[in-house]
Amino acid sequence: MRAEIVAVGTELLLGQIANTNARWMSEELAAIGVDVLHHQAVGDNLDRVVASLRLAADRADVVLVCGGLGPTQDDLTRDAIAAMLAVPMVRHPEIEALLREKFRGYARGAMPESNLRQADVPDGCRFILPERGTAPGLIAELGGGKRLYAVPGVPSEMVEMMRGTVLPELAQRGDGEVIASKVLRCTGIGESRVAEILDDLYEGSTNPTVAYLAGGGEVKVRLTAKAGSLRAAVALLEPVLDEVRGRLGDTIFSEEDEELPEVVLRLLERTGVTLACAESLTGGGVGARLTSIVGSSSSFVGSAVVYTAEAKRAVLGVSPQTLADPGVVSRACALEMAAGTRRLFDADIALALTGVAGPEPHGGHPPGTVWLALETPDRTYARGYLSAGERDQVRRWAEQAGLDLVRRYLEGKPLPPSDAGT
Amino acid sequence: MRAEIVAVGTELLLGQIANTNARWMSEELAAIGVDVLHHQAVGDNLDRVVASLRLAADRADVVLVCGGLGPTQDDLTRDAIAAMLAVPMVRHPEIEALLREKFRGYARGAMPESNLRQADVPDGCRFILPERGTAPGLIAELGGGKRLYAVPGVPSEMVEMMRGTVLPELAQRGDGEVIASKVLRCTGIGESRVAEILDDLYEGSTNPTVAYLAGGGEVKVRLTAKAGSLRAAVALLEPVLDEVRGRLGDTIFSEEDEELPEVVLRLLERTGVTLACAESLTGGGVGARLTSIVGSSSSFVGSAVVYTAEAKRAVLGVSPQTLADPGVVSRACALEMAAGTRRLFDADIALALTGVAGPEPHGGHPPGTVWLALETPDRTYARGYLSAGERDQVRRWAEQAGLDLVRRYLEGKPLPPSDAGT
Repeated sequence: MRAEIVAVGTELLLGQIANTNARWMSEELAAIGVDVLHHQAVGDNLDRVVASLRLAADRADVVLVCGGLGPTQDDLTRDAIAAMLAVPMVRHPEIEALLREKFRGYARGAMPESNLRQADVPDGCRFILPERGTAPGLIAELGGGKRLYAVPGVPSEMVEMMRGTVLPELAQRGDGEVIASKVLRCTGIGESRVAEILDDLYEGSTNPTVAYLAGGGEVKVRLTAKAGSLRAAVALLEPVLDEVRGRLGDTIFSEEDEELPEVVLRLLERTGVTLACAESLTGGGVGARLTSIVGSSSSFVGSAVVYTAEAKRAVLGVSPQTLADPGVVSRACALEMAAGTRRLFDADIALALTGVAGPEPHGGHPPGTVWLALETPDRTYARGYLSAGERDQVRRWAEQAGLDLVRRYLEGKPLPPSDAGT
Repeated sequence: MRAEIVAVGTELLLGQIANTNARWMSEELAAIGVDVLHHQAVGDNLDRVVASLRLAADRADVVLVCGGLGPTQDDLTRDAIAAMLAVPMVRHPEIEALLREKFRGYARGAMPESNLRQADVPDGCRFILPERGTAPGLIAELGGGKRLYAVPGVPSEMVEMMRGTVLPELAQRGDGEVIASKVLRCTGIGESRVAEILDDLYEGSTNPTVAYLAGGGEVKVRLTAKAGSLRAAVALLEPVLDEVRGRLGDTIFSEEDEELPEVVLRLLERTGVTLACAESLTGGGVGARLTSIVGSSSSFVGSAVVYTAEAKRAVLGVSPQTLADPGVVSRACALEMAAGTRRLFDADIALALTGVAGPEPHGGHPPGTVWLALETPDRTYARGYLSAGERDQVRRWAEQAGLDLVRRYLEGKPLPPSDAGT
């Protein structure tokens, strides 16, 4: 099945927003075995939207339109679909009732009558009632077995309709086959190493397929199987999944598509352990990522962001001797930072991160030099490594490596060996 | 002048990356008065790339192709341009010499001969030599005054060629008119308020045009004038710029397109003042943003991320009385956090942020309740406000509001009044 995504909205063409909807939709479509061959973005102009929809319908089996379903005069997707199908618009009472009810809930006073445009449906189309927002989705049969789905441009509303209606319908379409898919998220391992390890599974993989994607200090491995029933698809998936699990081992931090900070917080909560951090090169990034998750305050107590040598001494008690030699980029400094923050926050365990984010060397250490330390009731540990990448990557990968130490400690997994001396 | 952007790369269609290049290019093109009417994304397939280029050349005056200029067999943009123009490929000695020299610089040993594909230029095309990376850009005349530019897909390499060659060429093209453009970045003011204030300038603005864009806790106002010479364009721009400056006043934090943390660090450096933070609801985000900038350690000493009430007491000395009543979401707590972190880090000035990021209320305070405090040698200040938005927005806007307090203090501008009681 071939799909094409058409994003509608002048804001895309003015560069006010990036087309992140097309990225999300494409990833989800790939996961259910739908090939996306083109993306288009077009502005709020009726003739151009109609032309883009016709082009997409010519070359794809499924057209996914995103945006242009709002209540304003600029929202033209409904009209474009009606024009493309050459059918009149029909106001639908069920949508109208929903809109009036939603407006009462918003307590914004009377609904402008112009909002009822959102209750208009091109004759013969199905619609998807919205839970969030007020824009219904539309489903049009284009003839020849081709179909068009239109979903709102607001990302959360788009995701709701994709997950609730579009992806399930597409997963069951065409050959009547069902997809089973699993994502293993790994860290502490490079994409090229994953590729080496899984080479024979990846090469010519057809069913299940094996694919990987690196970014942000992790590698996602996605396995996808297709069969006549979910049970049969899962049965195809399981042995390959077991094989991949065995090969990637404890570099896998999630099989449930969780972020690494989510996994760490879940483990802290389950074990009743509290965590404090001491951050130098990451500047607060570990704390910011942990606290981006709701409920983190039950396990993450805080972080000492000690960006200067003097702050490391005054706030965390790193010794003047250590600061003088071997200096702030060292095993000794990382260990003293971890001990200091554990004491300061009275936490069960402490993670410390220090190093050189770059672009300039610091104290004779090249950019990318990173030292991590972990202090727990039963052990102390430190690890140095040389990171590739630019400043942002060095910092991001250090966050990941640090969080992964905590994950491994809480899961009782071995901590990686140190690559460096002092 | 009408432009179209064609992004080439299967990774876009698989959803592995978002098309952020198209966003950046579109914003820059809009700033020089070029209308972008379509974006396309197409995979690494020769026939489909050629078809997409032909479609773009049919409907636009300028085609911007991004990606597919690398050294591998999957990099097909060169071949697609040659096929579209029906010209042979010519290996260019100047590019070949540059590639060999770059490889020697990388000290990676011998260059694979296959890399010389990057020295191939469709006959009759101009090329752009790369500073970063190894992929040359290409410029093809399409006839009828139409032109095609191909730039690499690596964002930094794309930006280099757009800034160095493509945008300057386009700015001088067509009607022989020159563009002068200025961006004013504002914070502490909503988009709708900016719209109100600038309504008469925005409505029907043609030359200069006034446009605005909100996001991430700030509003960018862009003024663009067009004239026969740069001098004339600037002369058109200046009076409107002065008018906008006067109306937006000290909500403007940058006229040089700097990020707010950059402005704060520049002011700290210039005044020789050191800053420490105490972060609760932002969890380290202020520190992470300040330290994302090179050289921040000369002015930003550190941040105490105190996520729990106990950490606020133990680390910063917030009094048990304050923690009991009025509690952690209060003027008193923010002020004590600022005082505590200023003392702890021995900094000249201190910023504290506490509040309820949500989604649940905390201690009777609704999500979005934020208290900020600033302690300096000559004054203490606190401000409470109720933020709209989801958890991520509440946190981001609090970072912006906090950094803006520091900016205003260092610039000697008035600090905003508090909206709340305790």
